[in-house]
Amino acid sequence: MSVLIKGGRIVTAADSTVGDVYIEGERVSRIGTSLEDDADVVIDATGKLVLPGAIDPHTHLDMPFGGTVTIDDFTSGQTAAAFGGTTCHVDFCIQARGQSFTDALAAWHEKREGRAIIDNGFHIAVTDLDEGGSLEELATLPEQGVTSYKLFMAYKGALMVDDETLFRTMEVAARTGALVMVHAENGDAIDVLVREALAAGNSAPVYHALTRPPELEGEATNRAIQLARVAGAPLYVVHVSCKEAVHPIAKARRAGWDVWGETCTQYFFIDQSYLERPDFEGAKYVYTPPPRPRENQQVLWDAVRTDVLSAISTDHCAFLWDGQKTMGKDDFSKIPNGGPGLENRLHMIHEFGVRVGRISLNRMVELLATNPAKLFGLYPRKGTIAPGSDADIVIFDPSRRKTITAAGQHSKSDYNLFEGVEVTGDVDTTLIRGTVVVDGGELKVDPGFGQFVRRARFGEELQ
Amino acid sequence: MSVLIKGGRIVTAADSTVGDVYIEGERVSRIGTSLEDDADVVIDATGKLVLPGAIDPHTHLDMPFGGTVTIDDFTSGQTAAAFGGTTCHVDFCIQARGQSFTDALAAWHEKREGRAIIDNGFHIAVTDLDEGGSLEELATLPEQGVTSYKLFMAYKGALMVDDETLFRTMEVAARTGALVMVHAENGDAIDVLVREALAAGNSAPVYHALTRPPELEGEATNRAIQLARVAGAPLYVVHVSCKEAVHPIAKARRAGWDVWGETCTQYFFIDQSYLERPDFEGAKYVYTPPPRPRENQQVLWDAVRTDVLSAISTDHCAFLWDGQKTMGKDDFSKIPNGGPGLENRLHMIHEFGVRVGRISLNRMVELLATNPAKLFGLYPRKGTIAPGSDADIVIFDPSRRKTITAAGQHSKSDYNLFEGVEVTGDVDTTLIRGTVVVDGGELKVDPGFGQFVRRARFGEELQ
Amino acid sequence: MSVLIKGGRIVTAADSTVGDVYIEGERVSRIGTSLEDDADVVIDATGKLVLPGAIDPHTHLDMPFGGTVTIDDFTSGQTAAAFGGTTCHVDFCIQARGQSFTDALAAWHEKREGRAIIDNGFHIAVTDLDEGGSLEELATLPEQGVTSYKLFMAYKGALMVDDETLFRTMEVAARTGALVMVHAENGDAIDVLVREALAAGNSAPVYHALTRPPELEGEATNRAIQLARVAGAPLYVVHVSCKEAVHPIAKARRAGWDVWGETCTQYFFIDQSYLERPDFEGAKYVYTPPPRPRENQQVLWDAVRTDVLSAISTDHCAFLWDGQKTMGKDDFSKIPNGGPGLENRLHMIHEFGVRVGRISLNRMVELLATNPAKLFGLYPRKGTIAPGSDADIVIFDPSRRKTITAAGQHSKSDYNLFEGVEVTGDVDTTLIRGTVVVDGGELKVDPGFGQFVRRARFGEELQ
Amino acid sequence: MSVLIKGGRIVTAADSTVGDVYIEGERVSRIGTSLEDDADVVIDATGKLVLPGAIDPHTHLDMPFGGTVTIDDFTSGQTAAAFGGTTCHVDFCIQARGQSFTDALAAWHEKREGRAIIDNGFHIAVTDLDEGGSLEELATLPEQGVTSYKLFMAYKGALMVDDETLFRTMEVAARTGALVMVHAENGDAIDVLVREALAAGNSAPVYHALTRPPELEGEATNRAIQLARVAGAPLYVVHVSCKEAVHPIAKARRAGWDVWGETCTQYFFIDQSYLERPDFEGAKYVYTPPPRPRENQQVLWDAVRTDVLSAISTDHCAFLWDGQKTMGKDDFSKIPNGGPGLENRLHMIHEFGVRVGRISLNRMVELLATNPAKLFGLYPRKGTIAPGSDADIVIFDPSRRKTITAAGQHSKSDYNLFEGVEVTGDVDTTLIRGTVVVDGGELKVDPGFGQFVRRARFGEELQ
Repeated sequence: MSVLIKGGRIVTAADSTVGDVYIEGERVSRIGTSLEDDADVVIDATGKLVLPGAIDPHTHLDMPFGGTVTIDDFTSGQTAAAFGGTTCHVDFCIQARGQSFTDALAAWHEKREGRAIIDNGFHIAVTDLDEGGSLEELATLPEQGVTSYKLFMAYKGALMVDDETLFRTMEVAARTGALVMVHAENGDAIDVLVREALAAGNSAPVYHALTRPPELEGEATNRAIQLARVAGAPLYVVHVSCKEAVHPIAKARRAGWDVWGETCTQYFFIDQSYLERPDFEGAKYVYTPPPRPRENQQVLWDAVRTDVLSAISTDHCAFLWDGQKTMGKDDFSKIPNGGPGLENRLHMIHEFGVRVGRISLNRMVELLATNPAKLFGLYPRKGTIAPGSDADIVIFDPSRRKTITAAGQHSKSDYNLFEGVEVTGDVDTTLIRGTVVVDGGELKVDPGFGQFVRRARFGEELQ
Repeated sequence: MSVLIKGGRIVTAADSTVGDVYIEGERVSRIGTSLEDDADVVIDATGKLVLPGAIDPHTHLDMPFGGTVTIDDFTSGQTAAAFGGTTCHVDFCIQARGQSFTDALAAWHEKREGRAIIDNGFHIAVTDLDEGGSLEELATLPEQGVTSYKLFMAYKGALMVDDETLFRTMEVAARTGALVMVHAENGDAIDVLVREALAAGNSAPVYHALTRPPELEGEATNRAIQLARVAGAPLYVVHVSCKEAVHPIAKARRAGWDVWGETCTQYFFIDQSYLERPDFEGAKYVYTPPPRPRENQQVLWDAVRTDVLSAISTDHCAFLWDGQKTMGKDDFSKIPNGGPGLENRLHMIHEFGVRVGRISLNRMVELLATNPAKLFGLYPRKGTIAPGSDADIVIFDPSRRKTITAAGQHSKSDYNLFEGVEVTGDVDTTLIRGTVVVDGGELKVDPGFGQFVRRARFGEELQ
Repeated sequence: MSVLIKGGRIVTAADSTVGDVYIEGERVSRIGTSLEDDADVVIDATGKLVLPGAIDPHTHLDMPFGGTVTIDDFTSGQTAAAFGGTTCHVDFCIQARGQSFTDALAAWHEKREGRAIIDNGFHIAVTDLDEGGSLEELATLPEQGVTSYKLFMAYKGALMVDDETLFRTMEVAARTGALVMVHAENGDAIDVLVREALAAGNSAPVYHALTRPPELEGEATNRAIQLARVAGAPLYVVHVSCKEAVHPIAKARRAGWDVWGETCTQYFFIDQSYLERPDFEGAKYVYTPPPRPRENQQVLWDAVRTDVLSAISTDHCAFLWDGQKTMGKDDFSKIPNGGPGLENRLHMIHEFGVRVGRISLNRMVELLATNPAKLFGLYPRKGTIAPGSDADIVIFDPSRRKTITAAGQHSKSDYNLFEGVEVTGDVDTTLIRGTVVVDGGELKVDPGFGQFVRRARFGEELQ
Repeated sequence: MSVLIKGGRIVTAADSTVGDVYIEGERVSRIGTSLEDDADVVIDATGKLVLPGAIDPHTHLDMPFGGTVTIDDFTSGQTAAAFGGTTCHVDFCIQARGQSFTDALAAWHEKREGRAIIDNGFHIAVTDLDEGGSLEELATLPEQGVTSYKLFMAYKGALMVDDETLFRTMEVAARTGALVMVHAENGDAIDVLVREALAAGNSAPVYHALTRPPELEGEATNRAIQLARVAGAPLYVVHVSCKEAVHPIAKARRAGWDVWGETCTQYFFIDQSYLERPDFEGAKYVYTPPPRPRENQQVLWDAVRTDVLSAISTDHCAFLWDGQKTMGKDDFSKIPNGGPGLENRLHMIHEFGVRVGRISLNRMVELLATNPAKLFGLYPRKGTIAPGSDADIVIFDPSRRKTITAAGQHSKSDYNLFEGVEVTGDVDTTLIRGTVVVDGGELKVDPGFGQFVRRARFGEELQ
């Protein structure tokens, strides 16, 4: 089976040239100016952008949280991803307290088995090194292609670990070639503030933000950076939302430390005032870290432009507003934290990043595909368009108009964070490993098509 | 009873003029150019500096630590202080786990009763808010003149508190007008590193420094700053030793936050290499934070010059080398942490700060007397030379040569951190509340002379 | 002749205590708690602040500029000063092109002779080292008590010097113990912008600001700093107006360089929008550097709080609006640059600095009196209240209400920059060298009372 | 004519994959995993790096300077370039005072005509807008493919322009789409220092550095940045040598300003002490800015790693030591400024940048090829390996050992700045527009092969 994509503007993290891409089997075999027309399938991409499939390093599909389960399973969530130009993601396998890592991974493999539309890997979220998992077991995971350890510095009494567990995990990562990821917020102080707010009768969604001030994200970000530095482990800070967290990352990177950060689409657009929307609509924007004061948005654009932050993810963690978010009607702390996002990352960043002139097309590709691939052991198999790479390719029409709506989305959530936003630029076709997965607004593969990716260790190449 | 100090150069934090000081009873009544010669005692200070008595905000007298007790009680420690030009200090009253604050304070008052040579107040060190003390009790302490709360972020399993206790104490301080003080090091990570070092057979004194890297001091410093900011409490970071801790303080202060920091005399002079001195002599320099790489010394001088750090204390916490320090002969973690210092702060800062040109005389007075007084509720009664202030005055001969030695000191410790250092400038006479306490190398008062000072709340004046 | 000021709160740059000040002849002889009541004059200062007379290091009295002459001569300008609590200033003696420094100084001495109300010194403004003055002559000025050299980096074709003259003057200053002062703006670029604006028909007052963007002040500030560093001269940057100029000063000071900066009262209050006031009223605010966008005001408050800027002057350079400012009715470049300010510095900084909580009373004294005295060779004779110092004292009632108006001012200008502003706090009495100069709203001395002050070299004391 | 490069590791600024490159005519037609073997020429690149030809944006061939002429003409200089993997450069056409730009360009075209080995473009160096050139003429140059204006802020009395000329040129560039380049040093102060040094009898080569302190480079760098900001022109700072110049560039770039900087190979390796080599050998290292204290080398590595500096050039400006450099035997100011470098940039940066781990291979390509191409209007025709791009390709053997020597070089200079340095990695083959120019240590083309490149305007693509 061969595919020829003709005459598009092929964009990588560094280059931008008009040409053809020839795919044989699952991989790209040639890129050229006038390639042979003998392919089984020929796609005319004239006037289109030919982009590496986007990679989302931060998603939560089919995940239990706060007494419920995220609404998107691997089929619905990954379908949304494919329609949005995302061809691979790395999902969080969460160790339950008292559970071994092996059991946790088995449970997560089962969630995706037979349901996957696009490719994905797993991070392991370490919550317990005493009762369930052990440092020894943790050290074996990279051999199974699970090469990143995630720790939560918040959610006290649930997912949160103390600094001892965090530090010891970092020491293991330094030995085994895993990348450490942190959710950075000071859970102790937040826990006090939440209890005080509720005791004072402050139960509305906006208190989700007011009890998690940005200083506490900045604090934990710096703490993780310093601990990682001492442990000798590479560190990736997830969902950076505010200047307080950007600054310590910037400082570490200027010093040449092995520290990276990501932000998520929503932090560029949704500010704290959204939480005050009436009729409990604010609950739609209850995710963590919370939406921040508007001034942070420019800080984040500057950070992704200057490589202080190296990736944009979605933190897709979708719930229904009606039925799930409403669990916290009388107590903001019971609102499930998270929102949908997998489907519109490319739309939003292309529109408000590239078209507006904040970042170049190359930088968009780097943030959405190449850097996530390089950081998470997927490169060069994924994350670029190059001979020998997986033919994970998005044909993107930069002039097609689209209005983002929940009605038109593929996530099962009943709302969209960017409802009603009009963008210019949409996905025509998504290919994964040479197969057309989405085209003409239709899904072209069945659940089960997506593959699990055993990722390389940090700093190593995946062929 | 009246005293006239004639013709000296009277130095305050701002001024420097030649003149006379007239004392009536315990207080300064007049400062002038040619005051009446009718005083009961006339001291000729021509060619001398007339300085406010130095105030040490950080000492540990008669304190249990690590299975032993600091060697200087209130009599020997305060005698050393008086000979070194220190006329007042604030000592740490340490709450034992399970003990009420009231009981702790009673115990500490007993230690000083009948033994005191100079004046002192107490900070309360909070170690336990669950079993012994309570937030409610803590809130009452300022009424007793105990207006500063100290918390340890290190010494896991002993004095260390978690972030919840730290944050809740800060919230109380914000309400009651107390100043929060922190010993800032990440105790969790240090605990892991110490255990790993010992497990690897690394038992020598230098491992005290190697298991407490400066990043962990910087981390905790920043953590305390951010938590205090959220809690709305003023914060004072004790014994800042390295650039990693200086930087977050500098940043907070530039932003106008209520954050201050102190360093201690020894951090300007003793670097990490001292810990490697042979024959276990390195143990003399085992204090916490540990001596740092030499490059930090310039950073500290810059910090005290530019008001990033606002005070220089001693952290006097004296042990015998022979018999106490040697408890850790085979295990650096068993070496009692601390060293003597009360006697030589003024000598060292005058010599290497003022005479060398790093700071002005005014700034020395500010760092050693006026700022500690203002920050800890002692000003204007103490910390300056002004009409109405306590006549706590040091007559300092800036041209007298002195060699610092353990043999010549008044601390009971059997060593001196600055052994053999030659300085130009020494204390001729120390007066406290108008009484000559030290003169001509002799102590002139009996134990019991020193008074307990009920300090004002943070930001208030003590008349 | 003796004066006793009883029971006021005596404030210096460091201290604040209630007490009495006793003056004998021209100088302070005693400060105390209950001084003898035998003085010739007794002033009850209960409830009042007793402050060191303010010193203004930056004024232009009786100065030719742009085809006219500033409206305040030494009598009217210094009367305004005395009513506002300013007891000493340093005025700029401007060398005309082709004129020797000796001739310039003679001319300026003549301006003040017989007219002076308060004390003053002179800076020399160097405009020409080729035709008129010489480096050799310049080197002799400190012997005459003129110990500061001012250079203009703007006003091309008039006062501006090139970098060679600037640098060579700095080298002389480094040798002779003079302080170099710069008006820092890039005159070359401004000259181009002004010509372009006028050519484009943009003649309104606001173009004064638009043709002098803050980047050009920041640039020249940094240039002067670097040149002074290489020349080894101490540098004082006058009238800093914007963050672009604050930043390089902050950086130099953190590094310990001999660099200081001043801002002026008006930059805290008047922003660029004032220039757009209708009916040519904007011309009142045409001074240089121009009023800046409002965001700079907070930057300046932070800078004076954190000692990035060390003094607040007035740059008093008064013109009539009607008749002088109107010379530029059709061409903003012909509006004489400058505004009145000598009378209200203390009012404004006390109200919006101290009362609002931005700076302490001590810091106000330091900024308005002690630092200018120390930097310009007047200390300790002036700039503080201490035994032996000149009795230049302001008795300030912190609770008296005052409305600032042109109608009520003593400057001859027909407007006031702060017209209609209400403040709480006003001068009751001004004493200079022990003589009451202003009291009860009346001037008590005749022209000729004020003395010329021969200032000490940079870093030296004036007795 | 077709060429197939088989099995090498193709490296671009973003990617690194093993594959084949197929060239038809002058351009790359295909990149793939197993391309057809039917090419006229097949080069086996197994185990080799296949790199975009390096581009040098900063060279001086056949240029009059200080009474002599640089020793390398276009043939010898470009031959050196080709052997070192550089396939294109942009040389400085220097306007003589009183000369029109048209005449200057004609003279420079004549220098290269019939002599060129590799491709090149021209920058115009503006020295005079009054007598010779005019702003109007300058505005027409981009139409001739000369899209960058260079100005010298140093060399007073020779090439230096004042700020007015600089600023007006920037204003033209803002209109015409040219990039402004500056040699940033304060020529006025340097001129004074040089005269003073010579007057004091200080004539040795090291005074070249001592009279050009880094503060004066930092100053001028900041000045150019601020002026460009006001003028609205993009700015490129050449040959950044020290932290003082790196800092203002870093600050501008963080703020998102259109500012870029380059450093040169030699600044990473040669420090100020080289100038003190005996027997006048120091003169070999007399170039401008001068070699700096060693601490700057790490700053420069950090700057190229973090994209504070975006390119590495050579500033190749070669003289003979014997006969040219010796003109300054008794007067360092008469030593012709400059050194050879075109031949060893890739060797040195690969060895000490990539192999040592300071930067990645991708970043090396970006610094040496892609960024210069993008900044100077050569991309995508040059600067990358992509379908449709010029086949300017270097086949680099990363394991071949080479010792750098003057004896083995192709420059006509009689010395090499890196004499005796051993590196691992050398050029096997250099292709320009599909033609093998260097292979097996031999030059394969005749003078005249190289073409003049009409560059696109700043920000535009060159097809």
